[in-house]
Amino acid sequence: MSALLMAILLNGMNSREISRWTDAMIASGERMNWSMLDRPTVDKHSTGGVGDKITLPLAPLVAACGAAVPQLSGRGLGHTGGTLDKMESIKGWKASLSNAEMLKVLQDCGAVICAAGAGLAPADKKLYALRDVTATVEAIPLIASSIMSKKIAEGTSALVLDVKTGSGAFMSDPMDAGLLARTMVDLGKRAGVKTRALVTAMDVPLGLTAGNALEVRESVEVLAGGGPSDVVELTVLLAREMLELAGISGVDPADNLKNGKAMDHWRRMISAQNGDPDGALPVAKEKLVINAELS
Amino acid sequence: MSALLMAILLNGMNSREISRWTDAMIASGERMNWSMLDRPTVDKHSTGGVGDKITLPLAPLVAACGAAVPQLSGRGLGHTGGTLDKMESIKGWKASLSNAEMLKVLQDCGAVICAAGAGLAPADKKLYALRDVTATVEAIPLIASSIMSKKIAEGTSALVLDVKTGSGAFMSDPMDAGLLARTMVDLGKRAGVKTRALVTAMDVPLGLTAGNALEVRESVEVLAGGGPSDVVELTVLLAREMLELAGISGVDPADNLKNGKAMDHWRRMISAQNGDPDGALPVAKEKLVINAELS
Repeated sequence: MSALLMAILLNGMNSREISRWTDAMIASGERMNWSMLDRPTVDKHSTGGVGDKITLPLAPLVAACGAAVPQLSGRGLGHTGGTLDKMESIKGWKASLSNAEMLKVLQDCGAVICAAGAGLAPADKKLYALRDVTATVEAIPLIASSIMSKKIAEGTSALVLDVKTGSGAFMSDPMDAGLLARTMVDLGKRAGVKTRALVTAMDVPLGLTAGNALEVRESVEVLAGGGPSDVVELTVLLAREMLELAGISGVDPADNLKNGKAMDHWRRMISAQNGDPDGALPVAKEKLVINAELS
Repeated sequence: MSALLMAILLNGMNSREISRWTDAMIASGERMNWSMLDRPTVDKHSTGGVGDKITLPLAPLVAACGAAVPQLSGRGLGHTGGTLDKMESIKGWKASLSNAEMLKVLQDCGAVICAAGAGLAPADKKLYALRDVTATVEAIPLIASSIMSKKIAEGTSALVLDVKTGSGAFMSDPMDAGLLARTMVDLGKRAGVKTRALVTAMDVPLGLTAGNALEVRESVEVLAGGGPSDVVELTVLLAREMLELAGISGVDPADNLKNGKAMDHWRRMISAQNGDPDGALPVAKEKLVINAELS
């Protein structure tokens, strides 16, 4: 398998090969199904950047607009943070849910952010561990199939991909980011998932903070109708794309940030997973003051 | 390591990389030394073909001409036979010798054919096992380094390589065979081994027989001054190259096949390794007669 991964890195894969490879990864585990819900499912995935906390305000915002968001998230990777790591800075919040628990949170709150279970695309977990030690992480067919196998197995009907490019992203070259976006959209469509991708800049951190608890605090500011404008803009932009794909019209997500509906969904979602939405967030023990005038 | 082998297969290695890689393989084990012998050492290696039993008459022939031949041989590989497998059809003959036993046979008989010990380029054994299961056997840098690491560690001062090409060889393309030959000669010279390569045809089997006991019988016919002309010609040709590299002149190997001296060395070498040079060779239990007129 290590040799095959290196061959894929060096020789690439054509679209038929990527599609069959991804199908096999999905078939290595269970495929979830949300057809019992009374609302359309739609999810979002970001390829990761510095200060990218968009998932935190976005999932409850889209839920407040009438869609169901089954957001299976991951941990930090390289220099980029992970949604689960950020959420775990909320006192009591539980990342691991059974399928039944996940369904209940989704039904009650319209959104759930949790860890992908071991039954979802287990081949990806084994391949990922090998990619990490064989210097084959950066192969576009392997990145695309890893992300899309999990998102397709997750059972969402629609998916918006936020593909990051620039000095703070894994794909610093916009051409590579575009190819990755195209590859993932093709995989989603072939699997019957309405898929759209945005290639967005990651040359400076998103928002004003990077760090688990700091990013939760900034997300709560956005849900309260404030927060840094770049985070608000990207959250609203992605929400509009998600709602359009889910077939929901006549609701402006910007309104639901201002009127507190998104915040209500956030608080319910946190409480449903044992978290305390009013609990104090942890503060770093060490503080380093950088002189901004330092050249 | 599997991923690295695939990268080498697909991207190749430059000469400096192959040289450092081969040095590392040699340094993974012991390097033998025959400077205590009173005669120059010279060896031969064939990349393998059908009916290629040349090592059997060649080693005692070159010994009869005054050189020492420390021939570490291998087993059958793919569709090609192995020298050790052939020799083991001689009743009682022992392939595995300690270094001390090997030296004694070499001193007493001028030639020794035996298995490479576990201490010789052990990295090659591990790499070979991985190449076999990762479809990376055919990479020229890996073939060249595998052969040359063992031959250099074996401690011979001079080496003649018989690189086979044609439909019965591993390198069917003469261009590939030429590149392999050039790569191995460069490795030998860098390591201080006088090295020469011949690219020879393997489009039809060598001699009239293929099969372990049959090839021993044919080799004995050659040592008795008879045998198929192609086997005799290649044996004498390689012997002349080996003697020239060893700095031995004034002896014609063709004479030592005719006058029985090569046969004397063969019989002593077989006896020294517990073999019975007069023992009956095994006969296959099943016999299949092919109608030669069948189109």
